Amino acid sequence: MTDLDALKDEVFRANLELVRLRLVTGTWGNASGIDRSRGVVVIKPSGVDYDSLTPGEMAVVDLEGREIGGGLRPSSDTATHLEIYRSFQGVGGVVHTHSVHATIFAQASREIPCLGTTHADHFLGAVPVTRFLSEAEVRGDYERETGRLIIERFQGLDPLATPGVLVAGHAPFSWGAHAADAVHNSMVLEQVARLALGTFALDPGIAPLPAYIQEKHYRRKHGPDAYYGQGNNRRS
Amino acid sequence: MTDLDALKDEVFRANLELVRLRLVTGTWGNASGIDRSRGVVVIKPSGVDYDSLTPGEMAVVDLEGREIGGGLRPSSDTATHLEIYRSFQGVGGVVHTHSVHATIFAQASREIPCLGTTHADHFLGAVPVTRFLSEAEVRGDYERETGRLIIERFQGLDPLATPGVLVAGHAPFSWGAHAADAVHNSMVLEQVARLALGTFALDPGIAPLPAYIQEKHYRRKHGPDAYYGQGNNRRS
Amino acid sequence: MTDLDALKDEVFRANLELVRLRLVTGTWGNASGIDRSRGVVVIKPSGVDYDSLTPGEMAVVDLEGREIGGGLRPSSDTATHLEIYRSFQGVGGVVHTHSVHATIFAQASREIPCLGTTHADHFLGAVPVTRFLSEAEVRGDYERETGRLIIERFQGLDPLATPGVLVAGHAPFSWGAHAADAVHNSMVLEQVARLALGTFALDPGIAPLPAYIQEKHYRRKHGPDAYYGQGNNRRS
Amino acid sequence: MTDLDALKDEVFRANLELVRLRLVTGTWGNASGIDRSRGVVVIKPSGVDYDSLTPGEMAVVDLEGREIGGGLRPSSDTATHLEIYRSFQGVGGVVHTHSVHATIFAQASREIPCLGTTHADHFLGAVPVTRFLSEAEVRGDYERETGRLIIERFQGLDPLATPGVLVAGHAPFSWGAHAADAVHNSMVLEQVARLALGTFALDPGIAPLPAYIQEKHYRRKHGPDAYYGQGNNRRS
Repeated sequence: MTDLDALKDEVFRANLELVRLRLVTGTWGNASGIDRSRGVVVIKPSGVDYDSLTPGEMAVVDLEGREIGGGLRPSSDTATHLEIYRSFQGVGGVVHTHSVHATIFAQASREIPCLGTTHADHFLGAVPVTRFLSEAEVRGDYERETGRLIIERFQGLDPLATPGVLVAGHAPFSWGAHAADAVHNSMVLEQVARLALGTFALDPGIAPLPAYIQEKHYRRKHGPDAYYGQGNNRRS
Repeated sequence: MTDLDALKDEVFRANLELVRLRLVTGTWGNASGIDRSRGVVVIKPSGVDYDSLTPGEMAVVDLEGREIGGGLRPSSDTATHLEIYRSFQGVGGVVHTHSVHATIFAQASREIPCLGTTHADHFLGAVPVTRFLSEAEVRGDYERETGRLIIERFQGLDPLATPGVLVAGHAPFSWGAHAADAVHNSMVLEQVARLALGTFALDPGIAPLPAYIQEKHYRRKHGPDAYYGQGNNRRS
Repeated sequence: MTDLDALKDEVFRANLELVRLRLVTGTWGNASGIDRSRGVVVIKPSGVDYDSLTPGEMAVVDLEGREIGGGLRPSSDTATHLEIYRSFQGVGGVVHTHSVHATIFAQASREIPCLGTTHADHFLGAVPVTRFLSEAEVRGDYERETGRLIIERFQGLDPLATPGVLVAGHAPFSWGAHAADAVHNSMVLEQVARLALGTFALDPGIAPLPAYIQEKHYRRKHGPDAYYGQGNNRRS
Repeated sequence: MTDLDALKDEVFRANLELVRLRLVTGTWGNASGIDRSRGVVVIKPSGVDYDSLTPGEMAVVDLEGREIGGGLRPSSDTATHLEIYRSFQGVGGVVHTHSVHATIFAQASREIPCLGTTHADHFLGAVPVTRFLSEAEVRGDYERETGRLIIERFQGLDPLATPGVLVAGHAPFSWGAHAADAVHNSMVLEQVARLALGTFALDPGIAPLPAYIQEKHYRRKHGPDAYYGQGNNRRS
C-alpha cells in the first residue's frame, strides 16, 4: 500500500466513523487528511452517499485545490479545509459536520462557554463562533472565504488547544493531528454543545467553570504534565 | 417488470425508507408516486403495518381517486396527495409523516424561518404553515380540503423550491421529483425543524439567516449554477 | 394451547413489545390481560428482568388479586390493574410504564391538552391527570387506592375513548380492548406527550386544536363512521 | 477462577454495561469494585477504548492506590473511587460517567429534587450536588480532593439510601453494594435527571413530591417492609 493509499484509507475510515457516531445526516459532512511532506490532501467526494463510498473514490487535491489522480470530484467544502491546512500548522485532519447541537449554537451565533470538565478536558476556553460573512465575501470565493473567516477568528487563539469552531449561521468545523483526531474532536464538540444547551435550559445566566478547574482538566490530558491514559495513547 | 410494477416497487421502497429514517411512528405516514403519462398514482394502503407491507399491496388510484387494480384500500390521506399532484406540476412523489419536530412546529402553527445553511441548502425561504381549516371545510371533503389548503398557501411560492409545508395543528407534507426525493425532503424538513427548535431555545428572537447567504446556499445546490455533487446526482 | 396459555403468551409478548418500543427502562413497566369469562388476569411478575422473562413465568391472579397457579409473584402494581378491570368494562388489557415524556407531564401534574391530530386520532380530549393521593390513602392499600384514584378521575369520561391517564407525581397508565391495544395506546400517549412538550416550548400559551378538528379526527378512526384502515384492522 | 479473577470479570462486565446503557461517550466513564476482605480494588484502566477492553487488563490497586499485579495503569479517577470506598462502608462498587442529563444538572450546580416516584423508588430525597473545589484543593491531590468533597457533602446523609451525587461543574458518581448495582444506580440517576429536566421545562417552580409519597415508594423497594420483586432479587 502506497502512502497515498494509506491516507485514502485513513480518510475513508474517518468519514465512516462520522456516520457511526451519528454526527452526519444524509451526505452533510466530510473528513479530510493531509500528507504535508507531499502537499497532498485527501477528502470525501461531493454529495456521495456514505453507504456506497469506497477508499478509491476519495478525492485527492493539492494545497491549491487542483484535483490530482482519478478520484471523484472533491467536497464543495474543500477550499475551507485547505485554508485551515495552510494556516494551522500541526493540523493533519479536518472535519465538517452539521451535528445537531453544535449546529444549534452556530445558528444562534453563540459561542459555547466552558461550563464543565467534559469541555475543559478537550477544549481550552470557549468554542468560538465566527461573524457572518459579508455579502461581498459570499459573492466571492465563498468556501475559501469561510476558511479565512475561521483563521480570522483564531487570531490570538491556539488552534491545537481549541480544535474546533462554529461558523455563524452554518455549522461546526473541527480539526486535529490526524483525520481520526478531527473526528474525535467533532464528537466532543457535539457532546459539549448538547450539555451546554441543557445547562442553559436550567440556568440561562450560568457562569463558566472557574478558570483554575478549566486549566487543571485541560492540563490533565494535554501537554507535559498530562497523566491521563496509558502514556502511549494519542487520543484523549 | 411493467411500468406500474416499477412504480409500485419505488413507492414501496420509499415507504420503508420513512421507517428506516425514523420519520414515522406506528402506521402514521405514507409515501406516493405518480406516473403522469398514465395518470396513475401509487400510494401506501391505509392503516397497514410497515413490517408486513409488500410491493403488490400498494394501492393504485387515478387522479380522481378511483381505485384501480387489486391492491388494498388506499391511505385515508390519498385525496390530499392527489390535490398536490393536480396543482404542483413537476411533482412526482408526495410524503406525509408525523415526524416529531416538524409536527411540533405544525402544532404550534409556526412556520420555520431559515435559520441556517442546512435549511438554505434545501428550502428557499421559510417552510410555510397553513391556516386551520374552517368547520365547513372539515365537515366537507376533509382530506381534499387539506390539499386545497396547501395549494392556497403556496400562491406566490414555487413548490419545487420550497418542497414542503406544515399543516396547522396536524403535521408536515413534503414532495419532490420522485417518491425518493419526497422522502429525502421529509427527512430534511424534520432535521431543519429539530435545529430550529433548539435555536429558538437559545434565542427566542433569533433573526433569519441574511438573505444573501440563504440565496448562495440554495443556488449552490439547485439550478444552472449548482456546483454540489458529482454532476449526475439528482439528490442533494 | 389452553386459553390460559394463550393469554400468558399474549401478555408475555405485550411486555416484550414495551421494551422494543423503548417505553420501559430497566424493569419499570408492566402489561396485563384479562379473560373476563374466567375472571383471570395475567400480569408480568414483579421486578424480573425483561431479558430473562418467559411466558410460563407470567403471574396469574383472580379479580381479587389472589394468586392462581405456579407463576411468579405478580407485579407490585397488580392491584391498580385490577381496579381498572373491575371498573372499566370493555377493557381487556392494561399497561403501566414510566415512559419519559408522559412521566414528565405526570411529574408536573399537567394534563396533556389535544394540540394536534396525532392526539385527536387516538384520544378524545385531553389526557387527564389525577390529583395526588392523600397521606391516608398512601398509608392504606396504596396500589388499590391508585386504581381508585384513576376511576375517580374518569367520572364523566369514557375510558374507551380516552384510553390513558397520568397519575400525578408518578407516571402513565393506559388500556385497551386487549393487551396489545393497551401497549399501542401507551406508545401513542408517549408520542403525544413528546409532541406536546415541544409545542409548549415554542408557545407556552398554545390553545387546544379547534374542537371540530378534534372530533373529525377521532371519528375518522373510531366508531360507526370510521374510514381509516382496511375495515378489519382493529388497531388504528 | 480466583476471587481476584472473578472481581476483574465482574468489573469488566460492569464497564461494558455502561456502554450498552449509553451512559458513557468515548472513554468517559469507569466502574470499579472492591474485595474488602483483601483490601483490593479493581478498576477500568485509564483512557482505553471500551471496544478493546479485556478482563485481564483491569487495573488492580490497594486502598492507598498502589498498583498491584500486571494490569494497565488505573483510571485517573481512581483516587476518587478509593476515597468513597474508605468512607462509605457497605459500598462494593463505584461508577463515574458523564451521562448527558445528570451532567447537565452537575454543570448547573443544581441538585435533583425528588419530583416523582421514579426517583423515590431509588433515591431517598434529592440527589445532592457538591460545592466547587477551591483553587488550593484543585492544585493539591485533585482526584482525592474530589472524593473528600463527596464525603463532605454526605455528612448527615446515608450514602446507601442516596447512592449518587453530582460533582459541581463535573459529572455524577454513583455507588452500590456491588459494581453491577453502582451501574444500575448510574442508569437510574441519568433517567431521573432526564425526567427532572423536562419537568422543570414545563414548570420551573415545581414542588417536590409530597414527603409521604416519597417515603412510601422508597420503603416499597428498600428495607424490612419492602414488597417489590421476587424476594431474592437484590436489584430493584
